[in-house]
Amino acid sequence: MLEKTTRMNYLFDFYQSLLTPKQRSYMSLYYLDDYSLGEIADEYDVSRQAVYDNIKRTEAMLEEYENKLLLLQKFQERNTLFIHIKELLKDDTPSVSALLEAVCELEKLD
Amino acid sequence: MLEKTTRMNYLFDFYQSLLTPKQRSYMSLYYLDDYSLGEIADEYDVSRQAVYDNIKRTEAMLEEYENKLLLLQKFQERNTLFIHIKELLKDDTPSVSALLEAVCELEKLD
Repeated sequence: MLEKTTRMNYLFDFYQSLLTPKQRSYMSLYYLDDYSLGEIADEYDVSRQAVYDNIKRTEAMLEEYENKLLLLQKFQERNTLFIHIKELLKDDTPSVSALLEAVCELEKLD
Repeated sequence: MLEKTTRMNYLFDFYQSLLTPKQRSYMSLYYLDDYSLGEIADEYDVSRQAVYDNIKRTEAMLEEYENKLLLLQKFQERNTLFIHIKELLKDDTPSVSALLEAVCELEKLD
């Protein structure tokens, strides 16, 4: 189980296109830019409670999308396999390594 | 551009978990089991027009999800890369091939 902030960052990365602009803004400020609930409330001129409720609902939505589509889980499974493949190939098959790099790029892996 | 039925089958496969049970039933009967609109209407005791409208709306939803998440597009891009990798490796690195098979299994590739 990933630590919650890391997990939310991943889920936000995978599913942010399905959120509303407001949900995206709050989540981005809270999880990526490390704003406090109070700072976000000031920024948008709403109550701290409203921001909190919105973020909680968004977190639940992200978990629900992951529950249905498993994008993060599959990403992690592929990542593990790619790391094994890269180790097995190392320097002796540079053309394959280049293709694997392209796959990883596609997956936004390191 | 994939032929429409093939494309809808793929999109349905990727995003069906985000549809309602009724949407899933209609799409499955229409695209997978090749029922006519009239046959589905009889089955569910609704009008042919209601089935048609539901399927059209669902198709638009699937395209909208693909527009946002690009699961089919990325699947096709990875598929192309995996085919190249498999050709490059052939029989001389069986351990890597086995891992690639596992990746393809994960992706539900042939």
